[in-house]
Amino acid sequence: MTKPPELAPAGAAGEPDPALKAALAAAASRVETALDTLLLPPEGPEAPLFEAMRYATLGGGKRLRAFLVLESAALFKVNATCAARVAAAVEMLHAYSLVHDDLPAMDDDDLRRGRPSTHRAFDEATAILAGDALQTRAFEILAEPDTHSDAQARAELVLALAHAAGGRGMVGGQMIDMATEGQRLSEAEIGRLQALKTGRLIQFSAEAGAILGRAPHAQRQALAWYGRDVGAAFQIADDLLDALGTTEETGKTAGKDEAAGKATLVAVLGPERARAQALLLAEQAASHLEMFGEAAGNLRALARFVVARRS
Amino acid sequence: MTKPPELAPAGAAGEPDPALKAALAAAASRVETALDTLLLPPEGPEAPLFEAMRYATLGGGKRLRAFLVLESAALFKVNATCAARVAAAVEMLHAYSLVHDDLPAMDDDDLRRGRPSTHRAFDEATAILAGDALQTRAFEILAEPDTHSDAQARAELVLALAHAAGGRGMVGGQMIDMATEGQRLSEAEIGRLQALKTGRLIQFSAEAGAILGRAPHAQRQALAWYGRDVGAAFQIADDLLDALGTTEETGKTAGKDEAAGKATLVAVLGPERARAQALLLAEQAASHLEMFGEAAGNLRALARFVVARRS
Repeated sequence: MTKPPELAPAGAAGEPDPALKAALAAAASRVETALDTLLLPPEGPEAPLFEAMRYATLGGGKRLRAFLVLESAALFKVNATCAARVAAAVEMLHAYSLVHDDLPAMDDDDLRRGRPSTHRAFDEATAILAGDALQTRAFEILAEPDTHSDAQARAELVLALAHAAGGRGMVGGQMIDMATEGQRLSEAEIGRLQALKTGRLIQFSAEAGAILGRAPHAQRQALAWYGRDVGAAFQIADDLLDALGTTEETGKTAGKDEAAGKATLVAVLGPERARAQALLLAEQAASHLEMFGEAAGNLRALARFVVARRS
Repeated sequence: MTKPPELAPAGAAGEPDPALKAALAAAASRVETALDTLLLPPEGPEAPLFEAMRYATLGGGKRLRAFLVLESAALFKVNATCAARVAAAVEMLHAYSLVHDDLPAMDDDDLRRGRPSTHRAFDEATAILAGDALQTRAFEILAEPDTHSDAQARAELVLALAHAAGGRGMVGGQMIDMATEGQRLSEAEIGRLQALKTGRLIQFSAEAGAILGRAPHAQRQALAWYGRDVGAAFQIADDLLDALGTTEETGKTAGKDEAAGKATLVAVLGPERARAQALLLAEQAASHLEMFGEAAGNLRALARFVVARRS
């Protein structure tokens, strides 16, 4: 089951290989276009709400989740426009969580991706409402007939995203993160926190293609496992960057987690063992995709890249 | 088209007639049970999130929206358990909007239905997350197979609720409300604000039964119009109570709208013309239901009651 070629280190600078780099750029471009179209602002005094929704979603981010939706959908030859709508919905859901996370009552972050966070660029009330409306819009898009001709697939997308994003998923993870701040958590507790807080939405993104493609259970399950493991690897890599990277390299404030008393696997295991675990998770993620052969090349390359990246 | 018997004034004390009173109590009890079941808290450090979600939804409110779902569903002999799930979803959506509305950055209300608002009973961060998770749970419930055996109906419920609740619906109305505070709005502008802020969700509630019952277009449309007019009448009645009622009678701080510089139809038209308009809207609401005959008696009685009530 070991797949050394898939786990060969990425370029020395932590750059993705050229094919993956092109696929990531293409996914970012396609989801950007979809987001722009799906967030058309109305006229009237509510216009600032839509400006804030667009500010929070357009023009930024790695678009990891969008990439996973588009690549998993491509495995089943899903119509690209339909897949881009789902990718946009996931990015809206992700963006809403960041907008609310950054609020003064939560993480109180003034910056996001090097720009003022939404409540700084607008105001707190507008940011709260923009986050709320982004969540609603995500579910609306999934339920719209343009997303899939089969209502069964649309209802399943809504159900799976809600499951990933709600109190037993992402929001539950955020609550655990807050409730346990400053506490010493076990490795298992941190794993659960992170699986909920960031893992579930990444898992949904990888699974979404199979839902869109009405894939057999085994294929959907394989993508879900892949997404779960990529999400876990991604989180450890993120924590390693925070612990070891410099602010200059990552564009984020280094050492923020430790300063905030956040429990991470890096803190519990130490950087060496944490890095080994991330590599193992990436290998495991790639191994779930064997049944898809060459078609899953970009997804396997991504698993490798998330642990090799430098920012 | 005038239907004087339907618009006969309610009891002198503004009480609903006995049949309506019983139906309202039954609806409140059924949705309470459904909410309790659908918001089972998990164990673990995220438990306070679910406590806050339950605090914000259980044990209070007129349950007007739940009543509309259950009564409209009964017109089409929809399974009562399925209808109660949709009623619970609408009440969760409504509750989330109140939790976020009450936040310090929004209306900054310490009290809700005579109890500390959610961010006072818990904390701001928990209230933000509880509102977020209530919205997610509402969509999750609608998409779950237990809500309807036909995925088409589930996807339509999600779509219609999202349309009612999002940036072009309820949240858009909240944005307008904030953005125009202290401004003098025209009658048309106030009408639009209130149609979005409170009307759309009430309209969805009345329409939901037709979606669940897979009713022909004309019947769904009739219920949507009924809901729209009941919602508008309800809002004027609410504003009249705020302007003319005493704190003792209504259980709310009287004169709050005027003090906050909120634009209401009562302020623009004066209480007499506003009251006449509410009565006209109630008559119009009832008239949309003619096709349902006796079966819509409770819905017609409700239209009468929302303008007659004293609290």
